[in-house]
Amino acid sequence: MSAKKHVIVIGAGFGGLNCVRALADRNDILVTLMDEQNHHLFLPLLYQVAIAGLEAPQVAEPARGILRHVPNARFSLGKVRKVDLDARIVTSEERRLRYDYLVVATGSDTADYGTPGVSEHAYGLKRLTEAMAIRDQILSACEEASRTRDPERRKALLTTIIVGGGSTGVELAGALAELRNHALPKDFPEIEADEFRVLMVESSPHPLASMDERLSLYTERTLVEDFGVEIVSDTRVTEVTPEGVHTDKRGFIPGYTVIWAAGVRGNVISGLPEPGRGGRLPTNAFLQLDGHPEVFVVGDVNGAEKNGDGEKFPQLAQLAIQQGKTAARNIEADVDGEPLTPFSYFDKGVLVTIGRARGVANVGGVKITGFPAWFAWLAIHLVQLVGFRNRVLVFISWLYSYITYDFAVRIMYRRRRFPGDSSAITSSPE
Amino acid sequence: MSAKKHVIVIGAGFGGLNCVRALADRNDILVTLMDEQNHHLFLPLLYQVAIAGLEAPQVAEPARGILRHVPNARFSLGKVRKVDLDARIVTSEERRLRYDYLVVATGSDTADYGTPGVSEHAYGLKRLTEAMAIRDQILSACEEASRTRDPERRKALLTTIIVGGGSTGVELAGALAELRNHALPKDFPEIEADEFRVLMVESSPHPLASMDERLSLYTERTLVEDFGVEIVSDTRVTEVTPEGVHTDKRGFIPGYTVIWAAGVRGNVISGLPEPGRGGRLPTNAFLQLDGHPEVFVVGDVNGAEKNGDGEKFPQLAQLAIQQGKTAARNIEADVDGEPLTPFSYFDKGVLVTIGRARGVANVGGVKITGFPAWFAWLAIHLVQLVGFRNRVLVFISWLYSYITYDFAVRIMYRRRRFPGDSSAITSSPE
Repeated sequence: MSAKKHVIVIGAGFGGLNCVRALADRNDILVTLMDEQNHHLFLPLLYQVAIAGLEAPQVAEPARGILRHVPNARFSLGKVRKVDLDARIVTSEERRLRYDYLVVATGSDTADYGTPGVSEHAYGLKRLTEAMAIRDQILSACEEASRTRDPERRKALLTTIIVGGGSTGVELAGALAELRNHALPKDFPEIEADEFRVLMVESSPHPLASMDERLSLYTERTLVEDFGVEIVSDTRVTEVTPEGVHTDKRGFIPGYTVIWAAGVRGNVISGLPEPGRGGRLPTNAFLQLDGHPEVFVVGDVNGAEKNGDGEKFPQLAQLAIQQGKTAARNIEADVDGEPLTPFSYFDKGVLVTIGRARGVANVGGVKITGFPAWFAWLAIHLVQLVGFRNRVLVFISWLYSYITYDFAVRIMYRRRRFPGDSSAITSSPE
Repeated sequence: MSAKKHVIVIGAGFGGLNCVRALADRNDILVTLMDEQNHHLFLPLLYQVAIAGLEAPQVAEPARGILRHVPNARFSLGKVRKVDLDARIVTSEERRLRYDYLVVATGSDTADYGTPGVSEHAYGLKRLTEAMAIRDQILSACEEASRTRDPERRKALLTTIIVGGGSTGVELAGALAELRNHALPKDFPEIEADEFRVLMVESSPHPLASMDERLSLYTERTLVEDFGVEIVSDTRVTEVTPEGVHTDKRGFIPGYTVIWAAGVRGNVISGLPEPGRGGRLPTNAFLQLDGHPEVFVVGDVNGAEKNGDGEKFPQLAQLAIQQGKTAARNIEADVDGEPLTPFSYFDKGVLVTIGRARGVANVGGVKITGFPAWFAWLAIHLVQLVGFRNRVLVFISWLYSYITYDFAVRIMYRRRRFPGDSSAITSSPE
């Protein structure tokens, strides 16, 4: 037991989980997986929880359930407070553990770039509870709008503002527009279908600006023409308030629901070196932290340069999965006294769904739009989802939504309140 | 429009919903369904959310989704504050509405009978959020126990106390014991299987005391011998604390998780007459509130006498369904100037599941135990569940659990804290 090497993996996301699994057959290694949540979250589908398409547990899998099949690993719940790189000790909320190897796979959180009001008045989309809160918010806003007599307030209640036109923003906007186009008008006969508004505020000229222009323009056209999303491009949000967003070029845009999908920042832990831009930790090609060959950094928080020209790897699930496996391979090599392998990224391409039967893909330079891209997106995400049961339930939920045009999980847990609620009781009975 | 009769139904439970549906084909009646939740909750399966067997939305159906098929009904979200019986006005959090007929279908909430500490330190099982909180609590307690070094604290963390041996207590105890016997030991290798304890504290000599003695004894034997539940009978809980329960005969029983299933009390609204015992409103045989023939009372809150001998109707879903339909029929008759029909209860029997392949039933005097009762329970609840999609998803979840002996929804949303948490960090690294 004492001769075993102890590997601590911080984070049960794509990077951490794949690292743990890749070390599963090593009897001479003991792995401790630490996370502040008790589950692995399948982030690519989280937005579907927010728009009432999926139930929260369908996109999550209990970490301890996953580790049932990993005999050399144990789980430790709790937020990691600090790392002592010299003493090689990780301190979480309730444990202090010494490691021989450390894998930092902490992922990323919503980045507000210093914009005031984001953390107080906008929703991020990184945790199950955030997605459930967005669902509560949208349903509460519709309920409130259904009875308010003030037309300005009604308009602001029915306007959802998505900040950011990257893949998260696009997928969320498309799905929200579908909810708005089909399910909500049936639920709320008090509200006209065109009163529900989905606005995307985007600093680039077009959504998915980092992709090929043809795909970017197709996405914009599809969002606007097929789904009715309003895109406010070339515009930066300068402040978020409970009533809407202030922008640099279009003044104030009213909207009581603001979802911030404008960027992420690596989660760093006290005791680790000062991160670079975007909260990313510099590593060498073997994914080792500078000066600390026993510490590996994988996924969104990894700041290795792609080709030595300053460009970083994309922050994608695929990348985290591959880096997690490379870190595991390099730990094994180090334990065995063998040479390490530099990380090499196998780019499987980018796939974004826009909504019902619409998507874009760039796979090895081949650009695909429309139904094939959408279908490929569904198939790949279903296969990658952790847990057989989740796969079955998500498949049925998707099939149901595809046939009925409906999103079924319109269950509100906690009602949200809005500006102007106090004066809300109408004085004379209808 | 103005000539239409306006029926307000307070409560989207079994009684209210069945009343609204039964009025669906009346063009001359406008129905407003009011509830503080935006969904109908299928209470008989709620305990399965608490034990991680089902996902919360699977036992709920959006009220507005149900009303899509009821053209003469509309939904109004909000807690009802008071009823003015003379002016015939219902005031909710945000609306004042005048009615021609009122249906009080407010159901019941957990009753503590004045026992100190229940509302602060025990969980009820009446709302989705309560079931989700119990799940969080049990999973958090296991996590905490997996690292605590204090054997007394560990024992208290791993002990769940269920107060009450009625059908809710029995179903919950059996299901919790299954979770404890199969899923939890696989998740927590740090904990021995027999360390997880499920305790039932019951004031009667045996659980299900109101049922036939043979069924009651079978239930007791099954819980104890097949599932390992510890039953503390003939004992009343006198106080609940964060550390456990004080009792009248067995002193203090330590256990950090206490679920109160010892009884319910009708939810009454300000402005209605003072209710009788158990929060039940006296009505005549037509379900009309004494002195107010335009007000009907159905379900758990109805206090009509069964045979004029003081005995009240049982507080069951079946009864609420039947009373909701009778109230609708009587409102129609009153609108049409026809004679009302007295409520007559068609007793379909009582069915209680104890756990995997075990149940008891008393159907028209025929007593059934074991697998047939369990199977009948599953089939009947699946058929009665509202929403086709829910039926499919619950069926799959049950099939999964039956095959794998697992409860899959072991997802913690909000971690719970326990007595003694602050001193928890171990000082030396392991």
